Amino acid sequence: MQVALVGVNGYSGMTLYRLLKQHPAVDQIKLYGHTDSKPTTLAALVPVFQKETVRVRSFDAATVMAENDVVFFATSAGVTKTLALPLIAANFPVIDLSGDFRLRQPDVYETWYHQTAAPVAALAKASYGLAEFNHHLTPYVANPGCYATATLLGLAPVVQQHLIEPTSIVVDAKSGLSGAGKKLSTTSQFTMVNDNLQLYKLNQHQHIPEIMQQLQQWWPKVPALEFTTTLIPVTCGIMSTIYAKAAQPTTTAELVAAYQQVYQDQPFVQVLPADDLPTLKQVVGSNDCAIGVNYNPITNTILIVSVIDNLMKGAAGQAVQNFNQLFQYPATAGLPDLPVFP
Amino acid sequence: MQVALVGVNGYSGMTLYRLLKQHPAVDQIKLYGHTDSKPTTLAALVPVFQKETVRVRSFDAATVMAENDVVFFATSAGVTKTLALPLIAANFPVIDLSGDFRLRQPDVYETWYHQTAAPVAALAKASYGLAEFNHHLTPYVANPGCYATATLLGLAPVVQQHLIEPTSIVVDAKSGLSGAGKKLSTTSQFTMVNDNLQLYKLNQHQHIPEIMQQLQQWWPKVPALEFTTTLIPVTCGIMSTIYAKAAQPTTTAELVAAYQQVYQDQPFVQVLPADDLPTLKQVVGSNDCAIGVNYNPITNTILIVSVIDNLMKGAAGQAVQNFNQLFQYPATAGLPDLPVFP
Amino acid sequence: MQVALVGVNGYSGMTLYRLLKQHPAVDQIKLYGHTDSKPTTLAALVPVFQKETVRVRSFDAATVMAENDVVFFATSAGVTKTLALPLIAANFPVIDLSGDFRLRQPDVYETWYHQTAAPVAALAKASYGLAEFNHHLTPYVANPGCYATATLLGLAPVVQQHLIEPTSIVVDAKSGLSGAGKKLSTTSQFTMVNDNLQLYKLNQHQHIPEIMQQLQQWWPKVPALEFTTTLIPVTCGIMSTIYAKAAQPTTTAELVAAYQQVYQDQPFVQVLPADDLPTLKQVVGSNDCAIGVNYNPITNTILIVSVIDNLMKGAAGQAVQNFNQLFQYPATAGLPDLPVFP
Amino acid sequence: MQVALVGVNGYSGMTLYRLLKQHPAVDQIKLYGHTDSKPTTLAALVPVFQKETVRVRSFDAATVMAENDVVFFATSAGVTKTLALPLIAANFPVIDLSGDFRLRQPDVYETWYHQTAAPVAALAKASYGLAEFNHHLTPYVANPGCYATATLLGLAPVVQQHLIEPTSIVVDAKSGLSGAGKKLSTTSQFTMVNDNLQLYKLNQHQHIPEIMQQLQQWWPKVPALEFTTTLIPVTCGIMSTIYAKAAQPTTTAELVAAYQQVYQDQPFVQVLPADDLPTLKQVVGSNDCAIGVNYNPITNTILIVSVIDNLMKGAAGQAVQNFNQLFQYPATAGLPDLPVFP
Repeated sequence: MQVALVGVNGYSGMTLYRLLKQHPAVDQIKLYGHTDSKPTTLAALVPVFQKETVRVRSFDAATVMAENDVVFFATSAGVTKTLALPLIAANFPVIDLSGDFRLRQPDVYETWYHQTAAPVAALAKASYGLAEFNHHLTPYVANPGCYATATLLGLAPVVQQHLIEPTSIVVDAKSGLSGAGKKLSTTSQFTMVNDNLQLYKLNQHQHIPEIMQQLQQWWPKVPALEFTTTLIPVTCGIMSTIYAKAAQPTTTAELVAAYQQVYQDQPFVQVLPADDLPTLKQVVGSNDCAIGVNYNPITNTILIVSVIDNLMKGAAGQAVQNFNQLFQYPATAGLPDLPVFP
Repeated sequence: MQVALVGVNGYSGMTLYRLLKQHPAVDQIKLYGHTDSKPTTLAALVPVFQKETVRVRSFDAATVMAENDVVFFATSAGVTKTLALPLIAANFPVIDLSGDFRLRQPDVYETWYHQTAAPVAALAKASYGLAEFNHHLTPYVANPGCYATATLLGLAPVVQQHLIEPTSIVVDAKSGLSGAGKKLSTTSQFTMVNDNLQLYKLNQHQHIPEIMQQLQQWWPKVPALEFTTTLIPVTCGIMSTIYAKAAQPTTTAELVAAYQQVYQDQPFVQVLPADDLPTLKQVVGSNDCAIGVNYNPITNTILIVSVIDNLMKGAAGQAVQNFNQLFQYPATAGLPDLPVFP
Repeated sequence: MQVALVGVNGYSGMTLYRLLKQHPAVDQIKLYGHTDSKPTTLAALVPVFQKETVRVRSFDAATVMAENDVVFFATSAGVTKTLALPLIAANFPVIDLSGDFRLRQPDVYETWYHQTAAPVAALAKASYGLAEFNHHLTPYVANPGCYATATLLGLAPVVQQHLIEPTSIVVDAKSGLSGAGKKLSTTSQFTMVNDNLQLYKLNQHQHIPEIMQQLQQWWPKVPALEFTTTLIPVTCGIMSTIYAKAAQPTTTAELVAAYQQVYQDQPFVQVLPADDLPTLKQVVGSNDCAIGVNYNPITNTILIVSVIDNLMKGAAGQAVQNFNQLFQYPATAGLPDLPVFP
Repeated sequence: MQVALVGVNGYSGMTLYRLLKQHPAVDQIKLYGHTDSKPTTLAALVPVFQKETVRVRSFDAATVMAENDVVFFATSAGVTKTLALPLIAANFPVIDLSGDFRLRQPDVYETWYHQTAAPVAALAKASYGLAEFNHHLTPYVANPGCYATATLLGLAPVVQQHLIEPTSIVVDAKSGLSGAGKKLSTTSQFTMVNDNLQLYKLNQHQHIPEIMQQLQQWWPKVPALEFTTTLIPVTCGIMSTIYAKAAQPTTTAELVAAYQQVYQDQPFVQVLPADDLPTLKQVVGSNDCAIGVNYNPITNTILIVSVIDNLMKGAAGQAVQNFNQLFQYPATAGLPDLPVFP
């Protein structure tokens, strides 16, 4: 299996490279930059990978398809909507970690991403790769966003089974700094992040529409959700703390049973026993999503806590999961099943 | 003014000592431990205060009253309910930073603190010192808890003015580790806290009943609130992120105006302009509470973000505020008005 | 006392503003930017100081002197060497926190700062304000660098008293990120600093020449010193870990006695007892320097650990100390004497 | 290959379990506690490994040897000196991560570990497994300590080739908190570690004698070394910053060439190019040691910076390296070759 990786210099791309290097089905990884990027090496782009002298070449669709069996794009929003069009036309296998093909409706993309969308015909050929729920991938997989993954896996059972009041969902999501990428900004300086908490993109986070798109596919009665994002002083990890009013009185034990039933065959979802809620350390370094649920009878509120490593299950790990599914490798091939602890 | 401080070895006590030392009205601070504690020095109890050779003596109510004009208790729950009784009987001025006299009903105390309450007659003589809202303090001031302070200051305008659905309040509170005190535990070890988030005391935090007691005094229709606490990897700082459905459609500007009106004369509450939400850095090191509000018309949800330094406004700083009020010193005497930044 | 502060937007400037606001002798602080800066407010420049609506005006030497009694410059290297010349000509009192007037020899400045130096005549009128050792300040005080302060206070006794081999000094200095200033860089991003250590400016740090200038004034036989700087994941604090061979065998007790004798009248230097070494927490938030010493007879090595808060004793705090000395206020006026702990 | 692991509940043990699980030659891992420990499961001992329901049984030497091909001990000092004796007697393959068999001389062990040593005859059968330098392992491998590994790999070329003054070595070592283990202590609480630096075990760290033993084997003229350890606010990672006077003037380029020559065939040692010094991030998560060297002609000092992940190359990773060597598997089998970044 010859694998192409476009955009290795971002955090998702680096993580993907590290995973693919140890994937048993991958023979070789070829690296590509933008169409007009100068040839370089991985070591030059990512200094901590000082040993990796593999070349990074500029991207040319025809060459990339000729030399490889699959392409991973770990590029920023706005790149694949043009760069990937020849691959879509050729039905060439692609895993796209960016947001360009996650939203079916071009106007929604344009509202949230503040740029023109990919052509409708191209969008129609992409499938949204929320790995635990999409078992019929097209060759073009739109890998979900990190917040979307944590939140959707947390909400799936109660939304699919109509266990909550659909107008009552509140998501208080917290993310480490690697989710913000490598771009320099005041917000991401150590002196602003250390010993601090910062809310950002209030009601404007671009993962909101892909969450809504999927929730409404599961249950059209969900009209919207309150969703905030808070930067926390950690490098990796997302916690989605989710609150919703129960449709009718329930118990924690019933909820845990419902979650266990939904996820019983999923190697990468841990449903915790009643009265246990996950910490980031439970998943960071692995491809797992860990979920704890609780029912508070005094407020009739269901609490769901869903945690992932934003670069693993929230990006590169889920991309490998989708790759495994697309090529019918074992679900867990090449993916670490234990967190790095401590 | 001769000031007694009981319990200097805890984080609140240390902070209080530091504040009182620079208070213009304080001539001398005398330190006391438990009734049967061995005489020692502050330097021996708190190694970073290596220069402070002031003695710490064992507590004797009569002596303490004879030698001082006021007593601060920075002791754990369960201490003042017996130790302070002679002072209450004598109507001696006390600022109590513990939870023992915050709850009026003994059975509520016993449910949440898992121990017997102070006598009813003693409880009746204490006043709850939420400094911005209680202007008629009795000589025995029960200083509010840290989560309670952040949450109540955040909720006061919308609860007092009935701007929200009273059954819809969700509080996602985050706290740094100094709130957990000095006691050694797995949860507070660096390896468990660094790069991690941990929820704790789910629906069982002892600050919930004092929040409810105050909210119901403001508006009896508030039946309960969903309240979670998450440990974050910072030393000081609490953020209460509060969500509630609006009673009727509103705007962010209207909400900001309401908050500004409530807090316009309060030197220690900052109401941020519309579209601005506070970070911990905005308050840590000062006695301020900073509050940002936002209305999301899509979900009809009011978001309130309230931040404090848990050891300042959430403990020692508010204690000094109450001391100033009790003795009619200027409200800001001895209190830093700027955060330590960076 | 009317005080001017130029450069409030940097970390040293913010800290200085906070200290001067609570200084008993300061009536008013006027803020100035660069000569051609647009009028603005402190709140606009430093968002966490949201309450401070004080104006920041552009700098004009004549106006500044007319309106104030003293000027603090908290500007980057290269600013005062031109901006301050009219003030020097007028013998106007200035505390300069930058490096422009610390080095007597223009060529040394030019080698280490990579720009032209101030005129020799101006340099000659400045005095190096290492507060514990310079008691004859000229009106123009060059406030020492942060690494220089920690290192010089740590070395003073053993160098002045010739207790070490002068060729054997090794300084392994560690600093938090606030020392690196506000400028955005890859090195200061949270993702590069958190969970990491980074050496920087190897043998090229601009504080080396001011350390050498002072050491050679104390003992001309010190030819050079090995000096490394490592960025650590903290916001504030410098630790200078200093190693030198003993000139002749000694004991820890003798060394402690020597240090205590040198610093016995200094309110801001703590000499720790034998077998105790300081942590950053012992000083951060205060203007103190804490020093621990140890003699290892097996290697005949003297170990000195000297810690300061780089923005306090290493910048703004020492500036206030020099201000107090220049105007004969009490040494401790306006300066916190206890660290912020936890 | 059936593998036994004793002591999975410590940080080294957890890490070892994670590595062995993905080792291609390992068929099954059996877990053992102390001789009298109650049967339990890994999930119960290590909550973040919630999925691992594998049993942990009490240790019985005969059973362990009967059921396994090799035993890893990740136990505290003082355990294997008795527990492992039957395995030594049987020449059974053992990798011992503790310090019990690293020192050849019982009196040295007793001086530094403050307890009685293993029998001399048993000590004589152990080999010190500094993987890059010991190619003739006996069946009982004493895996080196974390500080010892970083320091010895950093010093090997200059000591073996007599490039330094042997009396001039100074090691300023910094370590993250996972090196201190899981034991609760004031020193390892988040509030004491965050934003702080703490020196500990001054001149008393138990890794000093194993460093000296190896250095003197390479060059008997090295009499001692100055060695300090500082706790830094990170979870994983050790940096040994090493200073020594050059035996004669040299250049950075010559030094780099010497290091490259020594380590050219070593897959887990990265020698950085001249003027580059490693950060922790360059190695944490991998089994690498990265080394940068520099010569300062002004002070005639050689600076060596050596970094490792203390739980990988400093413990579990090197243990797997030794396992690979003992059983003649490829050197890199089962070991990650890229750091986890960010």
